[in-house]
Amino acid sequence: MKNTQINRATVPALDNILGQTFPVLDHGHIRVIDYMGDDAAIVQAARVSYGAGTKQVHEDRGLIRYLLRNAHTTPFEMCKLKLHLRVPMDCWRQWIRHRTASVNEYSTRYSEAIADQQGTLPGEWRLQTALNKQGSEGFLDIEQGEQLTAEEESFHRSARDLYQTRIERGVAREQARKDLPLSTYTEAYWSIDLHNLLHFLALRMDEHAQYEIRQYATLIGEEIVARWVPFTWEAFQDYRLNAMRMSGLEVELIRLLIAGDHVAAQAWLTEKNWIDPNNGKPSREAREFAAKAESLGIKMPDSKG
Amino acid sequence: MKNTQINRATVPALDNILGQTFPVLDHGHIRVIDYMGDDAAIVQAARVSYGAGTKQVHEDRGLIRYLLRNAHTTPFEMCKLKLHLRVPMDCWRQWIRHRTASVNEYSTRYSEAIADQQGTLPGEWRLQTALNKQGSEGFLDIEQGEQLTAEEESFHRSARDLYQTRIERGVAREQARKDLPLSTYTEAYWSIDLHNLLHFLALRMDEHAQYEIRQYATLIGEEIVARWVPFTWEAFQDYRLNAMRMSGLEVELIRLLIAGDHVAAQAWLTEKNWIDPNNGKPSREAREFAAKAESLGIKMPDSKG
Amino acid sequence: MKNTQINRATVPALDNILGQTFPVLDHGHIRVIDYMGDDAAIVQAARVSYGAGTKQVHEDRGLIRYLLRNAHTTPFEMCKLKLHLRVPMDCWRQWIRHRTASVNEYSTRYSEAIADQQGTLPGEWRLQTALNKQGSEGFLDIEQGEQLTAEEESFHRSARDLYQTRIERGVAREQARKDLPLSTYTEAYWSIDLHNLLHFLALRMDEHAQYEIRQYATLIGEEIVARWVPFTWEAFQDYRLNAMRMSGLEVELIRLLIAGDHVAAQAWLTEKNWIDPNNGKPSREAREFAAKAESLGIKMPDSKG
Amino acid sequence: MKNTQINRATVPALDNILGQTFPVLDHGHIRVIDYMGDDAAIVQAARVSYGAGTKQVHEDRGLIRYLLRNAHTTPFEMCKLKLHLRVPMDCWRQWIRHRTASVNEYSTRYSEAIADQQGTLPGEWRLQTALNKQGSEGFLDIEQGEQLTAEEESFHRSARDLYQTRIERGVAREQARKDLPLSTYTEAYWSIDLHNLLHFLALRMDEHAQYEIRQYATLIGEEIVARWVPFTWEAFQDYRLNAMRMSGLEVELIRLLIAGDHVAAQAWLTEKNWIDPNNGKPSREAREFAAKAESLGIKMPDSKG
Repeated sequence: MKNTQINRATVPALDNILGQTFPVLDHGHIRVIDYMGDDAAIVQAARVSYGAGTKQVHEDRGLIRYLLRNAHTTPFEMCKLKLHLRVPMDCWRQWIRHRTASVNEYSTRYSEAIADQQGTLPGEWRLQTALNKQGSEGFLDIEQGEQLTAEEESFHRSARDLYQTRIERGVAREQARKDLPLSTYTEAYWSIDLHNLLHFLALRMDEHAQYEIRQYATLIGEEIVARWVPFTWEAFQDYRLNAMRMSGLEVELIRLLIAGDHVAAQAWLTEKNWIDPNNGKPSREAREFAAKAESLGIKMPDSKG
Repeated sequence: MKNTQINRATVPALDNILGQTFPVLDHGHIRVIDYMGDDAAIVQAARVSYGAGTKQVHEDRGLIRYLLRNAHTTPFEMCKLKLHLRVPMDCWRQWIRHRTASVNEYSTRYSEAIADQQGTLPGEWRLQTALNKQGSEGFLDIEQGEQLTAEEESFHRSARDLYQTRIERGVAREQARKDLPLSTYTEAYWSIDLHNLLHFLALRMDEHAQYEIRQYATLIGEEIVARWVPFTWEAFQDYRLNAMRMSGLEVELIRLLIAGDHVAAQAWLTEKNWIDPNNGKPSREAREFAAKAESLGIKMPDSKG
Repeated sequence: MKNTQINRATVPALDNILGQTFPVLDHGHIRVIDYMGDDAAIVQAARVSYGAGTKQVHEDRGLIRYLLRNAHTTPFEMCKLKLHLRVPMDCWRQWIRHRTASVNEYSTRYSEAIADQQGTLPGEWRLQTALNKQGSEGFLDIEQGEQLTAEEESFHRSARDLYQTRIERGVAREQARKDLPLSTYTEAYWSIDLHNLLHFLALRMDEHAQYEIRQYATLIGEEIVARWVPFTWEAFQDYRLNAMRMSGLEVELIRLLIAGDHVAAQAWLTEKNWIDPNNGKPSREAREFAAKAESLGIKMPDSKG
Repeated sequence: MKNTQINRATVPALDNILGQTFPVLDHGHIRVIDYMGDDAAIVQAARVSYGAGTKQVHEDRGLIRYLLRNAHTTPFEMCKLKLHLRVPMDCWRQWIRHRTASVNEYSTRYSEAIADQQGTLPGEWRLQTALNKQGSEGFLDIEQGEQLTAEEESFHRSARDLYQTRIERGVAREQARKDLPLSTYTEAYWSIDLHNLLHFLALRMDEHAQYEIRQYATLIGEEIVARWVPFTWEAFQDYRLNAMRMSGLEVELIRLLIAGDHVAAQAWLTEKNWIDPNNGKPSREAREFAAKAESLGIKMPDSKG
């Protein structure tokens, strides 16, 4: 029970960029407004569990790695970050699904809507991917893109006109806004603890996340979290971003393959319905496994058995 | 420690409307999909605190009223409701701010956007209120309304055309949707416990809530909660919807007014800056108080002193 | 979109007591470890809703009062507090029920249990109240208290001996702790946002809260929150601690009483079953109302009618 | 937008055991009180994202496996479970740390404490493990166990006497309880959604979880979840319980080992400080890796290099 004066946790590398505008997309941005805690605060919170007698056992970096590796997540909640965001409403619709955050958003009931919309350059129109239901892949050719961009500009102008006309005629802001396009920018203060921020980053920096929110998430990770809590950022990359998860079934199969028992592996694939016995086509899970196996340098069984 | 077979809590009045479509706005709806618990489940959870010896003290209705009156909120969490909603995105943007709920929303990454938009009849265009920054009050005249409605229809058509053109040219759904107007309908499964639902209703049935979400909230309250947990609904109306809250300052002033001491009341108003000494104008808090006092039949001091 | 360097919100009055040990009970304490935000941060978050054009309308104190009065709670979430606590386990069992906080508690799996137990002075043994099921009221006489205190000391000694014996014989700490008395102290880092902290204080500073946790809550309010966010603390006292809530029924009755219509009031009391027609005894709700009415200087109807 | 009458999701296999007492430890139990949803409800919620057009793509089991494999967790929140628990307070202290649940606990302010304490048989006294700071491993010899058990019984008797004496002398229940041993049983209603329940099970069925809570968690998984949502339970075992996670570093090393490049592997181990260059001792991370590698049948490099 010490009574000595203590000072707040401060991170000079983060203080240096406080208030700085990091641009994202065409009219968006992220700014760090405030924060609480640092790598040492995580260690401090973890050590209340270990007690005084075990203080020397782990040094800070090792302890943070241990915590993240073993899903001891509560000490990371002791760090808080507060950002000011400027983001298209379509992107914000995904963002707001993360519930364990504090939010104050710009209100278009109180104030007129922000006049900026996210625009698309002719070379930026993405094609629906054939690989899965949700993603995009490649781009439309530039000529078609130019036409789409021209239509987009025209639509944005007419949307702004529609909104302005309603406002000028006295329509309540809360009703005038009803036809704003989802590309309209909004702003918000967003505060979240580090544990939940890492969860946000793991989902939104992922290659399956939509391009727009991935730009924001990557910037938060690489420009902000990396400066704020460098040990945590390093561990997060190793144990989350670059980690590989293998299911119990995948572990069974990988054992057979490493043992070189391709006959047993082939039988296993058939038994588990990973290979269609009629046409030899692999299931979705089998294809996902094959990608992992290849990246590890493990050979799949020759389909001729 | 009983071992007897028990049955699930069931509410025939709610079972009767399971799956029924309650229309809201022009293309929206609410449907009850499932639920857990009833008034008796609240009582059961509360009584685990009271223990066996006190079972006879309160009968169910009285206990539920006691719990709600005294903010013993946890027993209400034992009841869960699951709805299917169809709601304009603008309204959904407000809805989703209630974080203590489970949500699965229709995805316009996976599927094409719903083709319905919320339209406005000529007589439904609301005027910006002069009373505060956020509300609406009264309607535009019908002629102006007809023009706005025609413009709205035209805009909705062009928005749908824009979206369809993009889809047809192969633009990824996740990008094609970027300019959907906020009036576009979305759908969701929404599950919430009764305590948090009552909080949602208290905020969204309030006269300051926006018209659109108020229609949904009122329907949930009057058609669904009233059938599901009638004792709770009755208590909620009395202790939340119709309750009056007086601040410590208001209590001080009301005592002076009831005592008929208008000289002291006048002095109090000046001391607390509720009356501007220069022009005799009441502050915002003073005006809010005056409305409450009037509804109680309490006379404010004559401003002549 | 400014790009100017900003500084973190700092509160010198709170910085002055950072790390200082505030003793509570016989071996407990509270220390402020860190914080984020201040009164101005609440205003800043609220104003993102109001937009630039309305910045001058409210000054800070008025806006904070408005927010708290009208349950606009989200801006208060922008402020975070981090405390180090030392508290008996029995008290901690109540504390931990507040779920919207981040917690790292001293682990008696990793470390030996803290050797302190909360002891009771001979004059501090509280009597079970006759008024309700849960509280206490008055004290045992000092002679009985001396005996209870002696028994308590003896029991604490035997509990510590039992624990030490197990540890010395090699029993795992996680099992040796199984018979620690609830009076054993534990420690924790506890971080919470200001909105949820105010909710905690409203419940735990209340006269119905148990004495022990009330000491902690009162100290957090009066020594810490009052220094940290003085405008919020003032508004909290006025709109929460000292506020009076009247149900819809109570408002109906108060109107009749203020109008002086005691005949109608008497009829109302009978109709609502607030008075037992057989014996004239008031219901629980009627007694609660009578206390409020008295504090406002409103006379209840003469029971003779 | 169908308007047909629907029925609630019901699971006969779970209905059959509703209210049945599953004993745990010496005086504890778990009983299922109610539930909402089933495997099909998860699929239904997921498909609102996929839209009508994709309904035939996945059959239910495959979709549930896909969701769990890819951390699409929200559909699992649509299922709720409500249990009645009887559990020692020491175990409950761990249980209550899971914040996303609804809880009503037996109150020893309102009622006298439950008279049962968790006792320990002579052969059940566990030894502190040498492997890590927190676990247990092996048992004390039976003679020492008999002595500890006798001391435990005597202590439990004196704790009950102390409590009863206080109650008889009129001490308030809230104060009389202050020295109850942590082994005292408590009861609670506990309601949680399936996503958060799976998280609870993953942590508390784990071999590092304490013996006592592991008994409860395993029973919930194997006897309740397995009956309630069999597809989810199967997928949970494969993708969580039996899954293996490899960090980015581990993936790097495993590639070298599978390629048979032991020279490069040895260099890598030194470079990453996984092997102490002075004494050849592996780091904690290296030891964790070795266990995984062994289970996959991958040989570690010969330490002679």
